[in-house]
Amino acid sequence: MSNIKNRRWVLAAYPDGMPGEGTFRMEEDLALPDLADGEILVEARFLSVDPYMRGRISPAKSYAPSIEPGQLMVGGGVGVVVESRSGEFAAGDIVETMGFGWQAFAVLDAGTVSRVDPSLAPIESSLGWLGMPGRTAYFGLFHVADIQPSEVVVISAAAGAVGQVAGQLAKAHGCRTIAIASSRAKLDWCAEIGYDAGINYRSVPDLAAAIGEACPGGVDVYFDNTSGAIQDAVMMNLALGARIALCGTISQAASFGEPDIGPRLNRNLLINRARMQGFLVTDFAEHYDAANQALAKARDDGKLKFREDVMDGIENMPKAFLKLLNSENFGKQLIKI
Amino acid sequence: MSNIKNRRWVLAAYPDGMPGEGTFRMEEDLALPDLADGEILVEARFLSVDPYMRGRISPAKSYAPSIEPGQLMVGGGVGVVVESRSGEFAAGDIVETMGFGWQAFAVLDAGTVSRVDPSLAPIESSLGWLGMPGRTAYFGLFHVADIQPSEVVVISAAAGAVGQVAGQLAKAHGCRTIAIASSRAKLDWCAEIGYDAGINYRSVPDLAAAIGEACPGGVDVYFDNTSGAIQDAVMMNLALGARIALCGTISQAASFGEPDIGPRLNRNLLINRARMQGFLVTDFAEHYDAANQALAKARDDGKLKFREDVMDGIENMPKAFLKLLNSENFGKQLIKI
Repeated sequence: MSNIKNRRWVLAAYPDGMPGEGTFRMEEDLALPDLADGEILVEARFLSVDPYMRGRISPAKSYAPSIEPGQLMVGGGVGVVVESRSGEFAAGDIVETMGFGWQAFAVLDAGTVSRVDPSLAPIESSLGWLGMPGRTAYFGLFHVADIQPSEVVVISAAAGAVGQVAGQLAKAHGCRTIAIASSRAKLDWCAEIGYDAGINYRSVPDLAAAIGEACPGGVDVYFDNTSGAIQDAVMMNLALGARIALCGTISQAASFGEPDIGPRLNRNLLINRARMQGFLVTDFAEHYDAANQALAKARDDGKLKFREDVMDGIENMPKAFLKLLNSENFGKQLIKI
Repeated sequence: MSNIKNRRWVLAAYPDGMPGEGTFRMEEDLALPDLADGEILVEARFLSVDPYMRGRISPAKSYAPSIEPGQLMVGGGVGVVVESRSGEFAAGDIVETMGFGWQAFAVLDAGTVSRVDPSLAPIESSLGWLGMPGRTAYFGLFHVADIQPSEVVVISAAAGAVGQVAGQLAKAHGCRTIAIASSRAKLDWCAEIGYDAGINYRSVPDLAAAIGEACPGGVDVYFDNTSGAIQDAVMMNLALGARIALCGTISQAASFGEPDIGPRLNRNLLINRARMQGFLVTDFAEHYDAANQALAKARDDGKLKFREDVMDGIENMPKAFLKLLNSENFGKQLIKI
């Protein structure tokens, strides 16, 4: 097709422990296939890196098949239609999909993408507060944890793509919100967007005690983006009837497939009649419209700010991903092409 | 009051690790107080020992206050009214209460006991299948795990007071039921009462693999009476949308207050969008009548057998309790007075 050449990142090898830059390999000067009926060619404007990608580059069983070495890295992206053989889209349209891949151009089935209206919000919002991370926050709070006004809600990775939306939606719902994050700067941002309190898990001597101080009546809802030792500390402070919405396990990034070891804290669930529940945003696909409307309304009402951490150039995707795994990003991590 | 003398067991000291006989102390030749208005004097016929008592003899936080050294041991009992200053009960009536205590006679507020009709079932049933353990099984299955016909239900301590009822109720509901127990003899009994398969966790080389073999499509519901390593093995075999009804943590009997260490398996909840929920029978007090009716119907339909392990003599209560903590009981552990 034409003379456009593609660039893409493939998985080089499953990482042993924390991924490194050698985990990925760039392929360049790739010819693009001709479009079949119903397909569109899309040029990336923004690509997304997200914690879930850690699970895909492990041979361990997960909710989606592993990427095989040599295969294109998965990932969401938003871009502009360059050529179309679909009646749905014309050149110049903006579309978004979770299935873009780490590449400059993608040939996509028109049925698998969503139209993005650039007059409503910057197009990269479709990868952030108005996309998968924003909806994840919404479903975790309202469909999984069933938050109620005046409840105490603790959120880990509180300044991350999901966490910052969760904190603001919970606050707007009348909850008291506690941020857990990895730096003073992130906690300053959390305070700015309305969290009632914040804890730097890297600097407090006793995280469980710090949570207990911030939540003297216990934690009603824990939006868990990390699991691991942060979850342990929250488990020591559950209120009666607590709910844990288990959204991510990024603390295990270095040990996928070989879980690490920690205290058995089930009795804390028992004595508090608490519930821990895993969920994925895609389980709630039938409610995406409702979620998008709620998110757009929060934004219009001035109750939803969103911070992005944008790095330039597709060549930096592995670097951006490693930043994320090491909690060095500050806000939703994106790559601008 | 009269010349009746009481005997009772008090807590001697909080055990360090697994309780021993020295954990308790018998007090004898105790005078009984005169009855106040509304009180009854009840002579024990059967006293109950149950796993939950382990939590009460630990200073660690639990769902109920700890017993202090020197205080009467808590426990359920059924007995005959000897004297009454209540219009509700007359001498000769049979009554049951969770609040009898480890003692030969109890002075009780008539409002805290339930009448037992000895023509419906042996009176000790009120401590077993038609009492707290039976109702615990019922609520765990139907209110917490929400079992559905044809689902695969795994039950630990499957021959115990709660487990054997849970297995039969789940089977009667159309589920496939898998017993996990500590001996061949217990598993034979499990087969006799209708479990579809059984696993001896003490003799299989790899419990997770054995569960995987017994449940090739995964575990839909785990009725967890033990937690610990058995739960870990079930967590390796969860089906999509699995529910874990967290009923007991008796595997931690030797380490209350200082949780032991195990693999962090939260990711298994996440990828299977599974739920783990702690519960107590007393949370469902408003549904006790419905539970009793369902249990009585199952019994009348010939779908509910119940095995008891009866030891004679109040002097043996600590021995019976230690038997239970070491999985050496076979069925609901009772003391006949």
